Order: sequence, then structure tokens, then C-alpha cells
Amino acid sequence: MTAVNAYITNAPGGGIKYEKVEIKDSPGNVSLKPLMTGICGTDRGMVNGALSFAYNPEGYDFLVIGHESLCVVTDSKSEKFKKGDMVVPIVRRPGDCPNCRIGRPDNCSDGNKHEAGITGLHGFMRDSFNEFDYNLVRVQDSDLGEVAVLTEPMKNVVKAFEVFDRVRSRFIYENVYSTFDGKNALIIGTGSEAFLYSFLARDYGFNTFMVNRHPIDQIPTELCNTFGVNFRDTSKEPEFPGDMKLDLIVDTSGDPATIFRFLRKMNHNGILILFGTNGKAPQAGLSGEDIDFIVERNITIAGSVDAAEVHYLKALDYLSKWNRLHRGMLNRMITNKFAPGELGLFSKKPQGEIKSVIKWD
Amino acid sequence: MTAVNAYITNAPGGGIKYEKVEIKDSPGNVSLKPLMTGICGTDRGMVNGALSFAYNPEGYDFLVIGHESLCVVTDSKSEKFKKGDMVVPIVRRPGDCPNCRIGRPDNCSDGNKHEAGITGLHGFMRDSFNEFDYNLVRVQDSDLGEVAVLTEPMKNVVKAFEVFDRVRSRFIYENVYSTFDGKNALIIGTGSEAFLYSFLARDYGFNTFMVNRHPIDQIPTELCNTFGVNFRDTSKEPEFPGDMKLDLIVDTSGDPATIFRFLRKMNHNGILILFGTNGKAPQAGLSGEDIDFIVERNITIAGSVDAAEVHYLKALDYLSKWNRLHRGMLNRMITNKFAPGELGLFSKKPQGEIKSVIKWD
Amino acid sequence: MTAVNAYITNAPGGGIKYEKVEIKDSPGNVSLKPLMTGICGTDRGMVNGALSFAYNPEGYDFLVIGHESLCVVTDSKSEKFKKGDMVVPIVRRPGDCPNCRIGRPDNCSDGNKHEAGITGLHGFMRDSFNEFDYNLVRVQDSDLGEVAVLTEPMKNVVKAFEVFDRVRSRFIYENVYSTFDGKNALIIGTGSEAFLYSFLARDYGFNTFMVNRHPIDQIPTELCNTFGVNFRDTSKEPEFPGDMKLDLIVDTSGDPATIFRFLRKMNHNGILILFGTNGKAPQAGLSGEDIDFIVERNITIAGSVDAAEVHYLKALDYLSKWNRLHRGMLNRMITNKFAPGELGLFSKKPQGEIKSVIKWD
Amino acid sequence: MTAVNAYITNAPGGGIKYEKVEIKDSPGNVSLKPLMTGICGTDRGMVNGALSFAYNPEGYDFLVIGHESLCVVTDSKSEKFKKGDMVVPIVRRPGDCPNCRIGRPDNCSDGNKHEAGITGLHGFMRDSFNEFDYNLVRVQDSDLGEVAVLTEPMKNVVKAFEVFDRVRSRFIYENVYSTFDGKNALIIGTGSEAFLYSFLARDYGFNTFMVNRHPIDQIPTELCNTFGVNFRDTSKEPEFPGDMKLDLIVDTSGDPATIFRFLRKMNHNGILILFGTNGKAPQAGLSGEDIDFIVERNITIAGSVDAAEVHYLKALDYLSKWNRLHRGMLNRMITNKFAPGELGLFSKKPQGEIKSVIKWD
Repeated sequence: MTAVNAYITNAPGGGIKYEKVEIKDSPGNVSLKPLMTGICGTDRGMVNGALSFAYNPEGYDFLVIGHESLCVVTDSKSEKFKKGDMVVPIVRRPGDCPNCRIGRPDNCSDGNKHEAGITGLHGFMRDSFNEFDYNLVRVQDSDLGEVAVLTEPMKNVVKAFEVFDRVRSRFIYENVYSTFDGKNALIIGTGSEAFLYSFLARDYGFNTFMVNRHPIDQIPTELCNTFGVNFRDTSKEPEFPGDMKLDLIVDTSGDPATIFRFLRKMNHNGILILFGTNGKAPQAGLSGEDIDFIVERNITIAGSVDAAEVHYLKALDYLSKWNRLHRGMLNRMITNKFAPGELGLFSKKPQGEIKSVIKWD
Repeated sequence: MTAVNAYITNAPGGGIKYEKVEIKDSPGNVSLKPLMTGICGTDRGMVNGALSFAYNPEGYDFLVIGHESLCVVTDSKSEKFKKGDMVVPIVRRPGDCPNCRIGRPDNCSDGNKHEAGITGLHGFMRDSFNEFDYNLVRVQDSDLGEVAVLTEPMKNVVKAFEVFDRVRSRFIYENVYSTFDGKNALIIGTGSEAFLYSFLARDYGFNTFMVNRHPIDQIPTELCNTFGVNFRDTSKEPEFPGDMKLDLIVDTSGDPATIFRFLRKMNHNGILILFGTNGKAPQAGLSGEDIDFIVERNITIAGSVDAAEVHYLKALDYLSKWNRLHRGMLNRMITNKFAPGELGLFSKKPQGEIKSVIKWD
Repeated sequence: MTAVNAYITNAPGGGIKYEKVEIKDSPGNVSLKPLMTGICGTDRGMVNGALSFAYNPEGYDFLVIGHESLCVVTDSKSEKFKKGDMVVPIVRRPGDCPNCRIGRPDNCSDGNKHEAGITGLHGFMRDSFNEFDYNLVRVQDSDLGEVAVLTEPMKNVVKAFEVFDRVRSRFIYENVYSTFDGKNALIIGTGSEAFLYSFLARDYGFNTFMVNRHPIDQIPTELCNTFGVNFRDTSKEPEFPGDMKLDLIVDTSGDPATIFRFLRKMNHNGILILFGTNGKAPQAGLSGEDIDFIVERNITIAGSVDAAEVHYLKALDYLSKWNRLHRGMLNRMITNKFAPGELGLFSKKPQGEIKSVIKWD
Repeated sequence: MTAVNAYITNAPGGGIKYEKVEIKDSPGNVSLKPLMTGICGTDRGMVNGALSFAYNPEGYDFLVIGHESLCVVTDSKSEKFKKGDMVVPIVRRPGDCPNCRIGRPDNCSDGNKHEAGITGLHGFMRDSFNEFDYNLVRVQDSDLGEVAVLTEPMKNVVKAFEVFDRVRSRFIYENVYSTFDGKNALIIGTGSEAFLYSFLARDYGFNTFMVNRHPIDQIPTELCNTFGVNFRDTSKEPEFPGDMKLDLIVDTSGDPATIFRFLRKMNHNGILILFGTNGKAPQAGLSGEDIDFIVERNITIAGSVDAAEVHYLKALDYLSKWNRLHRGMLNRMITNKFAPGELGLFSKKPQGEIKSVIKWD
């Protein structure tokens, strides 16, 4: 048993404390210290008791939270890592289904995987922990710095676009030049994931739009301008995007009414990626005409959750690329930094937040 | 101009008449006479004026309806067909989008295709017409007989399973033996398409269930028993299928409330194929929790419409197979036969109908 | 230990005996008796000591041969099978590589699989044995009769066409109508596998040709005529197929000179499946011009070995289809039947052989 | 007609001149001036009369050569480009086959495409020409500078890896963590294409090896060190790579003997990409044992030629990435620069050449 300072909740009931707790020593061969851990809607959902699927590890009456993490290696018995290496720990751990067996627990067929900081496994918001080397991804680009804490949210985006690539094999999705030129993508939401989705949509070559029901601040505006993303405040421009037909929609809101509104703007062969979750969002309706619309246009709707090691690696690649192309811009996505012990940010989103983090050292 | 006896409507307004009309001679190199033409929900929808996207061919104030057809060649200038050949004409004709350019107008990217008997092209319910050989599929298995009139509905099923095969490439869908053993499929509806979907689900190896909100007659019951399909009347067994998790759902009802009810029973990596359309079906709701369910389970929902020549060919193959395996059973799906001129069946579904047809000779 | 009458060799040295041997009782939950076991080039290769990769099971100085088998269940502790069921046992058993883990030992990544009757596992040429139910595939179509002994060779054909389907996803392989009409397939060889390959090529819609360096007998000729396959004796018609361009070649000869000769006839985007093996075939050469030809035409060459459970299931499906379409024809492929104890057929191919079998009862 | 200074040959006979020629005005809506044009084996092959498939444009007794080009826009009637834009013109122009119809003339099914500077279309080695905007790809990253002349060779690499990705869908190619960690790639050759292939193999995560039959100079050595590629001189270390099994081989030599030597080192499920061509390379042999090796290991061999617009776009992306990661290193690949009029480099490879170019301004 080791005593560590940790952010803990009592899953699925909720609550948040920062205190010293005793945790069984992990057999992992690499010792880690967190540098920065991000906070996302899942963390807030657990703290608010809104995530019914979360549960404490066996033998504990609490759960250390935290799954978006950038760590430094403090000691290593593995040849793959040495003291001082920057790493990102992988969140999901495999069960024994066919997808888990081939390193794709993100596509777990039976739900018998575990997620650090969420389902049955202590998370990364503690001042030290051990991990096996095969659960760690190295940050090789030292220029990334704190931006590497965005690896975990970005890996979801990379996996969702893999899903997009697979489902679009059902037809020719590209134009007659075999490119995405002239195709329109809409990202619903303006949080950190929404920005990362919009950046990758631009990378593919989509005309890319972000929407929310309120105006955005200076930092989000600069991010949009820098990456060539068009933002629209739908509370002021409700008719947007007018006659424009959408070839790709990615939702990060989890709100049925918003999703369905834009679904009705889809083009033939359009693809809607559902990523955001909001268990408290009210019901919204689809009619027979809407089903007809989906059928007649060969529209595909795909839920996408989590990601595998390969997506962490590609996530780091994209972050490096964008960090070099637009020096300093990704750092601006980390809008709010807090010291360990701060509790308020778990119950209330700070003003102007894109990504809030705990800075450990 | 040639005068023919034809079933006509005035699209999209509706109505139905059987009368002699003048139609410009088609330049097609094969002359055809219908043997049997099937009637489906699309035909009834047009007659009732419920299909807003239907329209008359240019230069006509009427549209010959009919797209499910079995014909005999009466004369041929093509080397590919000779007098007496049985053929099924293809419904959809390509525009110039990338999918149409490669013979996949069923995946048309811009809507600029045409559909015989539905959108801008006269259909097959007339006592003679010409077609180009490349729009005809030969019926080679003479044992099929009248069953070949099911080729057109069956081709939709083959294409929808192609969509299923493509979208499931996003993960390992099969069990650890790489088969479908132990996977559950649910087909919503009990019309002709629903039966064909359930037969193909059985072929894949699914435990297959059909559901409707009323009991089924003797013929559907025998079809289920013969093909190993389980039918449940959900008005009597509302809790069905209980704890069973569904890996595949195919909807032929177009009814949002029914679709969403079963969507909530899906397994991880479940796939829902939307095929049925019912523009008048009332709205039903999905909540934030439902979106969450779709996201967390990597669920895919895919609309699928129409099919291409390759699917007509495979449709004939499946019909031949099932016709030989279960002699006489597919014939029983043709429950109601009418002589040309009969109008009532277009407004009212005959009692016990699985498939109603016009028998022309 | 149980004493059984068995055909044994001493792998990889070779030799063949039929004698009573003691074998450890297998823990398999289904007891089997062979009805018919096929003999193929692999069996003869082992007997002749030409298969260096073959080896005896651990703890034995002999190997029971036989991997093409049709058996009857004599006793069953499994719910999946009952006494009297006809089954085909699966040849390859998984190791722990990613492909083996998902039920695809046919694609084993590290060679640590086993093959009954070939590599480290006793085969099926013995008068009784036990198997686990998950290694058995049921023969459901009772009309098949003895033809079911062709399931094992046919499963290789099904897997090879799966490979064909996957590798051709690199481009649009079909014509502008999205079918195979007008495409040419060439099958090299006239053994049982060659016939099964040519039948499946016909099923896809290829113009299909078989070639060998000698004329064929009456039975092969009738098989060709029945299935619409064109045979050419290349010793008499060396220029064949002249200017015809080949879109698909399947080799069952393993002879480099023959393979390369036809490779030079390939069309753009042509695919060559290598299936046949003949370790003693002499070297033949490819020049820089030949490599250029392969590059400039985007040609793909794919080795394909063995198959998984899913392919056994589809193999039975194809055999049933062809058996019904052409009653009695597949039975004619079983050209030579021998009683247990016969040894000559292992060293010398009987005259007119397509498939030789041991008939056990 | 416009008079331009151009490098011309008389295809397929050969020869090289730099002189003023009269060329019909192209209707293209963008006017261009070359900045830099690369020279490759194809150019030298045409000059030496070794490319039998090359031919002059209709109505000309000469062919302007040059297909690797970086140009500046001098005038534009297109909205997509403006004066001063840097662009790379696309080499291959579509015919009417299914692949050409969807913007993939690199996969042309019938050979009826054209290639600028090679087959029936004047190339880019002239002091001005017009192009349609849809045949131009913009260079957006101004940091690239002269490195953008590598776009054309790099686009071949991107397409070849697309082929790799498609053909490997026939099995699970990755390790049990779903990554390429531990997989070995071998690139045959040390020219510019070989380096670009090795850089992309590193990007995928392969342990990457380059081989040639002679030592390499300082610049290639630095490139290898910078990108983490291992070079081996096989004249000195003939046993290399010993027991190492190769999961991917890319050949840029076109030499059968070299290709076959390494083919025999392949791992199960190995993939060999054939890219290099050398029509004069002598024959080398494969035996029956070699065919057996390919079959038993499910090995795939894929020719890959040219690329489509999408690959030019991704090529620019990779060049930008590597140019930023390893500042100045890609520029070092342009080893030899010549003024227009220089003829010697077409018949003799300059000492230490990785990429030779004509610098036009």
C-alpha cells in the first residue's frame, strides 16, 4: 500500500475530495509523476453523480479520477522508457472480446474492459503511480510541451475519423477528382474536442463550420481564424447554414434537438458522427419524414467512443503538426490552470474555458 | 409514339388509372412484355399523393408506375438477349456523380438519377415497352418462375447487407471463431421485404427474429417455420426480447417509435439498417441518454436505399437457392394476384398480403 | 490410450503405413467415425518426404495423416451435435497471434498454429477420434451426400476469393455497370481445386478458362461444359489465350514457368492468386521488363493458404448450390474410391483422378 | 502557336535537345512558369530510348519531357489561383475507365490515360505553359521552398502506402496492441524515392532499413541518421538482415535478383510493394519452393504506379511535416542543380545524386 494525494469520487454516487488515500501498489514497471491533468465533461459528470456506468475499483470505496494526463517518468524498469521521458497513459484496458484481443478495447464487444478514472480502475489524478510500459505512449516532440495534455482528447478525434473512413467505404464519398474539395463539415459545439474535430476536418480538406448557441470569446475566435474554421452563433443566425448541404457532421453536444436540426441539412451520402454525451439533455423527436430522409439519402450515423494506442500516436502527430504550423495557438486552448487541491472547477465550468487543467508541479 | 395500356398516376399529386396512353418510342434495343409486376408501398404512396419527390417524365402530364417487374423478351436487336428470355428491368438510371459514373446510381451523390415508375421516367406497368440491354438482368434459373418477380424487392436486401458488411469493417463484428454464431438479428415488420431480410439474416448465421404489433397468418407462420425465423407479436409480448441484446436490426416499418424502442436493446457494436419509409409516421423521441447509449456502444445507424445491377444478380442467386432449399415456399409469398385494370389494390392493402401482383398474360 | 487403425507417416521423412497404433485419448466432447477422407497433393508430398515443414505430434514418432474429411457423429457430449450428424472437422487450430485470437488461424502471423494431419497434430485418417464441438462444421444439406468431402478443398477456394475481394479494394475492379461482365479469369490446372476455383469464378460472372498441358478426359470435359468453363490444352494451342487480357489468374500448379507465362497476359489491375504448391518445380525467370509490367499495371499477386470456419460454412453453401443446379455433377468429381488399407494411391496418382478418397464404411 | 524553349525528345526513339519549339496554345486557364523541374529514371529512360511505351503528342514529331515540377502562377483566369501562387502540376490525365471517371487515373483500367512528359502529352520542361486549374495543386506551406519539387516523387510513395493499407485489410497486420511496433520494413535502393519511402515507413512506426550494393555518401548517411533509418551495404554485409523477418519490402530498383533475394526473408503476412522499374535488368528466378513460401505465408506482392490528386495533397503534408521536424534536411536531398540547356545530366547520373533538378530562373 502507498499513500498518495489524489482527487477521489465515490462512483457512481459522486462528490469530489482531494486527500491522502492508501492504494495498493501497482505492479507496473514504470513510475510516473503527473505534470498536467485535464478535466472534461466525464469528470464533471462523475462528480455530479450523473454517470451511472462509473464504478469504484474492487476493494475500494472510492475512485481516483482523471484520464487526460501528461506525466514524467520518475523511474523505469522497462527498456522502453527512461527517467525524464514524457508520457501519456492509455485510458482503456482490454477484456477478452475479439476487439480487446487485438488491441482495440475502444471497440470492446461486451463491455468487459476497464477505463482508468472511470470504470473500476484508479485514474491519473494522484501525485504518483506505476504503469506497465505497454500502457504508455511516449511524447517524442519536445516542442509540444504542455500541449501534449491534449493527446487524450485528440485521440478520440483520430478514432472518430477512422470510423468515418471505414463507414464511407460504402460508397464513393469524394468528388470526381477523388478529393474532399467542396465538401462541407459541421462541428456542433465549441469545447476542446469540438476544436480538435474542426482542425482535423480542415486537414481532410472540408469547408469547416463550428456552431454554438452563443457567441465565442477572443481565444476561440483566434483559433477559428488561424485554422480556417467558420464559426456561427446559431442564436443570432438561426437559418445558418441555409441551403448549404452538409457532408459530415460531428456532434460534441450530446443534445438530440441540436443534432436532429442539423441532420435535416445533410447531403446525400452524409455521415453524422455522434461523439458528445449529455445524459440530461431533453428528448427531441424524429418523424417518419426524417427516417425517410435518412433512408433515401443513404445517410450513416455512427457513435464513436474512446480510441486505441494507434490513435494516441497519431494524435501526437497531429498536435505536433498543428503546433508547428501555428506556433503558440494550441497552447491557448489550455485556458485555465489550477493547483492540486482546487475543487471548484469540478462543479462549475470556469469562464471562457476551452480546456481546464490541474498543474501538478 | 406508341399507344399502350398502362397504369398511370399524376406525380406527385397522385391518383390511379388504367388506360390507353401515347408514349414516345424508347430507343431501347430490346422489346418487352410484362408477365408480372409487383406492388409495393412506394406505388401506394404515389397513388395517395404521399411521395413528394415523385415527378412525371418531361413532356408528360402523367407517369406510368411500376418498378417491380418480371418481363419476357418479345424482340431483340441485342446479342445479349433473345426472344423468350425472362428478364428483370433495372429501376434506377445513372446521372453524372462519382457513384453513378461507376454503375452505382443507388449511391447517387447528388440526386440527379432517375427511377423508372417513380422519378421522371415511365415505369413498367404497361403492356409493352423497349429497354436497352444494359438495363436488363436475365433470369437464368427457369425453376424460379413467378418467384423472379421478387428480384426487385430482394435486390434492396442484398444492397443493405452490403452496407452492413462495409460499415462493420470499423471493428471485429464476428465472434472469436470469426462467425456470426450467437449473434442476434431483429427484423421489424412482416411485409415481403421483411421476410427477405430475415431470410438473408438466417443465411449469415444470425439468430433471427421478426416482430410486428399484431399476430401473423398461416402463410407467414409457415415461412417463419421453414426458414428458422422466430416471430413475436409485440402487442402480446411487449417485453420481448427481454434481456436479449441485438447485434443487427433492420427496420422495414419507417416508424420512429418502433425503431427507437428496439434501438435501446442494441448490443455493443450493434448496427441498425434503416430501410422502411413511412412519411406519415408520427414523431418519436430520443433523449440525451439515448445518444449516450449510441456513443458508448459504438452503434452505427445506416440508411439504405435501392441497389445496383450486381445486387439484382445476387438477388436472383439467393431466390434460386431458397427456392430449391424450400420448394414452393417463396411462391407462397405472392399472396394476391390481380388482372390488369384492377384498381382497388392501390388504395387498400388486400387481406393477408405479403406481395400483391398484377399478372399480365 | 486408444488403439485405432490409421494411415501414418513419419514426418517429415515420409513413408506410409496403415496399421493399428496407440493414441492418447483426446479430450474432445464429440466422438467421430470417418465416412470418407480425401487425398490431396499435401498428403502425397508428406508420404514422399517432400514437405519439410510437416512434423509429428509431440511424444509420437509418427503422424496420422488426413485433413479432408467427412465424418459421422457416433456420440456427443455437446449440445451442438447429436449422434448421426454429418460433420467436417476443421484442419487448422489457433496459436496466440492477433489473427489466431479472432478465429483466423488461416492468417496466422507467426506460424504457431497447428494443422491436423500435417503439423504436430494427428489427422483424420483413422477409424475413430474425438474432437471439440468448436472444431466441427455441420453438413446440413442431406442432399450433398458424399460431395461434402469436398468441403475442405472448397474452403480454400472461398478464402482465396475473400483475399481477392480484399486486395481489389485498392481500385475499382468492376466494369462501369459495377459487375464482372466482360472480365476474364484463368485457372491454371485441372485438379479438384482448379475445378472448384473455376466454378466460383463463373459464379462471380467471369468468362472463365482452365488450362493444362495435356488434354482432359470425359468427366472433366463434362464438368467444364456443365459449368460454362472453357478448357484449353496449351500443348496444342500454345498461343492461347492470344490477345485476351486476363483480369484474374488462379494458379493451382505451383509451377513458376507456367505462372509467369500467364502473368505476362494480365490486364491493368489484374490479380494473380497463388494457391498451388510444388516444391520440386524448377526455377523460372522474371526480367526487369516483367517487373515493369507488374508496376505499370498495378498488378497484385497474393499467396493464399488454408481457410477459417466461416469459409467452411460458405464452402458447404456453394457445394449445395452447385449440387442442386447441376444434379449429380459434383459427385463425378470423386473419381476414385478406395478401401482402408490401400497404399498405392499415396505414391501414384490414379488414372483420370480429379479426387481420390478412402471410403471407410 | 507559341514558341517556347523546351527540353524535347522524340519518343520512343529517344535523344535530348534544348531548343525553341512551336507548341499549340493550351486552353488551360492558368499560366505558369517553371521554377524547378526534377529529373528521374523515367526521363533518362526516354532519352536513352528505353521506354517503349512513351509516345509523342498527336501532330508532333517531338515530346516536351518533364513531369516533376514546381511552378509559379504568372497569370490566372481561375478563381482558385492568383499570380505568384506556387503550384505543382498533376502528371496523369484521365481517360474514361471506371477509375479515371472518379479521379483515379493512377489506377486506369484500360491504359487510355495520358501522362504529361511521357505518353502523348507535352511535359513541364519548358519556360512557360498553361494548365487548367483542376490539374494544379497549390503549395501552401511557404517554408517548403524548393523542397516542393519533391511533391511529385513523394506522391508515388503516398499512393503506394495507400495500396499497402488496402491489401493488408486481408488480415490483421498490426501487433496485439494494434500498432506497427516491432514490425520491420526494408527499402531497396538509395535514390530519392527510396529515401521518401523509408521516411514514410518510419512514420508508420516500422523499424526501417535501406539497402544498396555499395556504400553511401555523407548526405545519405545524415538523412538516415536524422530520420532513424538503418542503412546496410549488402556488398559488405551480404547476410544482412540475417534472421530478421521482413513485414514490408518496398523495391525501388526494379531488379528481379535483388527483389527475390529479400522476398525470401519475408515474414508471414508480409507485403512487397514493387515500385522501381528497370527494363534492362536481367532475369532472375523463382523456384517452386519460392512459390510455396509465398503461398504458405499469405504473402502479397503489389505493383504500384503513379498517384492521384489526393496523394499530391498528402505528399505536400508529409514534406511540410518532415521539413519542420528536421529543418534543412529535405533540401539536402536536392543534390545537383543545373541551368536550362544543360544536357549531360540526362545521359549520365551526376556523382552523389539523390535528386538532380533544372533551376529555371
